[in-house]
Amino acid sequence: MQTKGYVVAILGATGAVGTRMIEQLAESTIPVSELRLLASPRSAGKELTFKGQRIAVTVATPDSFDGVDLVLASAGGAVSAKLLPEAVKRGAVCVDNTSHFRMDDNVPLVVPEVNPDALKDHHGIIADPNCSTIQMMMALEPVRRAFGLRRIIVSTYQAASGAGQSAIEELKTEAQAYLADEPMTASVLPVKGAAKHYPLAFNLLPQIDVFEDDGYTHEEWKMIHETKKIMLGDKNAPNIKVTATCVRVPVPIAHGESVWFEVAEGQTPTAAELRAEMAKFPGLVVQDDPAQQLYPQPQTAAGSRDTFVGRIRPDQETPGAYNLWVVADNLLKGAAWNAVQIAEELVARDLVRVPAGSAELFE
Amino acid sequence: MQTKGYVVAILGATGAVGTRMIEQLAESTIPVSELRLLASPRSAGKELTFKGQRIAVTVATPDSFDGVDLVLASAGGAVSAKLLPEAVKRGAVCVDNTSHFRMDDNVPLVVPEVNPDALKDHHGIIADPNCSTIQMMMALEPVRRAFGLRRIIVSTYQAASGAGQSAIEELKTEAQAYLADEPMTASVLPVKGAAKHYPLAFNLLPQIDVFEDDGYTHEEWKMIHETKKIMLGDKNAPNIKVTATCVRVPVPIAHGESVWFEVAEGQTPTAAELRAEMAKFPGLVVQDDPAQQLYPQPQTAAGSRDTFVGRIRPDQETPGAYNLWVVADNLLKGAAWNAVQIAEELVARDLVRVPAGSAELFE
Repeated sequence: MQTKGYVVAILGATGAVGTRMIEQLAESTIPVSELRLLASPRSAGKELTFKGQRIAVTVATPDSFDGVDLVLASAGGAVSAKLLPEAVKRGAVCVDNTSHFRMDDNVPLVVPEVNPDALKDHHGIIADPNCSTIQMMMALEPVRRAFGLRRIIVSTYQAASGAGQSAIEELKTEAQAYLADEPMTASVLPVKGAAKHYPLAFNLLPQIDVFEDDGYTHEEWKMIHETKKIMLGDKNAPNIKVTATCVRVPVPIAHGESVWFEVAEGQTPTAAELRAEMAKFPGLVVQDDPAQQLYPQPQTAAGSRDTFVGRIRPDQETPGAYNLWVVADNLLKGAAWNAVQIAEELVARDLVRVPAGSAELFE
Repeated sequence: MQTKGYVVAILGATGAVGTRMIEQLAESTIPVSELRLLASPRSAGKELTFKGQRIAVTVATPDSFDGVDLVLASAGGAVSAKLLPEAVKRGAVCVDNTSHFRMDDNVPLVVPEVNPDALKDHHGIIADPNCSTIQMMMALEPVRRAFGLRRIIVSTYQAASGAGQSAIEELKTEAQAYLADEPMTASVLPVKGAAKHYPLAFNLLPQIDVFEDDGYTHEEWKMIHETKKIMLGDKNAPNIKVTATCVRVPVPIAHGESVWFEVAEGQTPTAAELRAEMAKFPGLVVQDDPAQQLYPQPQTAAGSRDTFVGRIRPDQETPGAYNLWVVADNLLKGAAWNAVQIAEELVARDLVRVPAGSAELFE
């Protein structure tokens, strides 16, 4: 382990997730000897603050990673696809928040509380799961460990910030127009670059990311595939059935999810038993007291690193099946904090090095 | 059938649903010879317009129903409990939009496209189902008829107006405060008169109506019990398993619902076959073309009498199971329009009369 500290680079440093990566890194246990903030030419020259120090953003090129130990990346899938293999080639270990490498067999997909051991065999790139996947894993992993898990049916209530800073701003501009009785115009949501855009303010959009030919969105498939890879360590393991419907809601930060799940055959824990397992799980906070109207809400979860779970109750007609409601800050636990946690875990396990032969895997 | 027209009373005429009952009645096929607008003392004296005519609101008392043929009620469960038996005693047939009588064995619970024959045996009171139940029945009844229905798991995205006009206003006031960077204050949602209130603007509230001891909200139980009564004609019939999670979202009008359902054992219709059955069903509009980004949204559904369904696709791991997304105006098809439709059906079937012995059933 390096005692003088690590050279860290943040790729996509000016975005909604990137700026939070800087904050989370500043508050982490990782000793940082140098921080490089990388972005597109459009953002170059901007200055951002890390531990009281002003750092200028520079344009990300392959050579930006010379001498870098750790990369935290959140500049979009195309940028990660192009630049992270270059970083690995230069000996930098990359934690990638984009979806590009997540299902790659050579890339661990990690929620540190859930499957930290997957880090052991990394080849220079570790993927940060999708925001909506992470918080569902946080709520269900204690259930899986104690009682098994057969099936998940999830409906999401996802915040605008999942589509970046511009989506938050679009939501606010639309809301202002609506309240002033003026027409709302949309150019970002549901998906940047899509043929059609719809207002999110005071509305619901049942489309997150692009559609696949089978009628599911890419976001829905991410939740399905990533769950299997994280919980089972192998994307082809068919043991847990998962299906998802993903909906964008007019909330700036923090996703909600309504999750129905079935534990292993023959298991019928009470809601209290489920709560007890969840309460012991690190990073998961049980907010579940109907008599006190206590349940997770985006406005109370935003800004926290924790995942909040409540409304835990058995399906009254299917023994072994349950409903719950889970909320987390999609930019923190759903992205920046989970990425920094992965980096902390790599440091703690002395895994901040690229094994020989790794770069070839991503060529 | 009366040829000169019916004397109609609207109870709760000044509320979010009541005002829409006036509009929907004006556009209905029901011949109205006189319209009485009834409300609490607070609203008495206000004037509302029906077919170009100004009508003063009067205080609702038992005698208000003398000579009335048809009552449309939406003034709260306690008011219906007290006044509708008085109306029945005076020979008026009542369509009640509150939850008070819905599960009464002597009261048909009707969505006219789904179970109109339940009207045949009415005893003077017919219940309008819960808004979130109605739109789910509209989407699933064509499925049930063609392929059977074994199980429903629903997560709702319910608009503020389900809690009345004051909740819409609270949502807008909160949104204005939020956008001006001022603190939001709540005094209506999640439930009027509850110990705690939370802002809905830019937030999600997983509580609609009060909690039962089992951790479900009353709203969730309404969806479960009402579905069984409507689809099976008998609230005790256990054939369809139903579970629900109800969430309030910052939308003024029109509820969304993410519904997972299983058809009868052995049936595995394609999404196209489901769409074809739905497209034939009256009042149901299929908006389901991912390539064109066509799917139901509250902002396009609000103001329409129709129910909109889309995102219809098979669960890829459970043959015979499917996901869909359904949206309808909760104040129209979910309340006022469904009530007026029931009244139209009563008129068409010459059922606007109270059978002897009915009044005693509600004493």
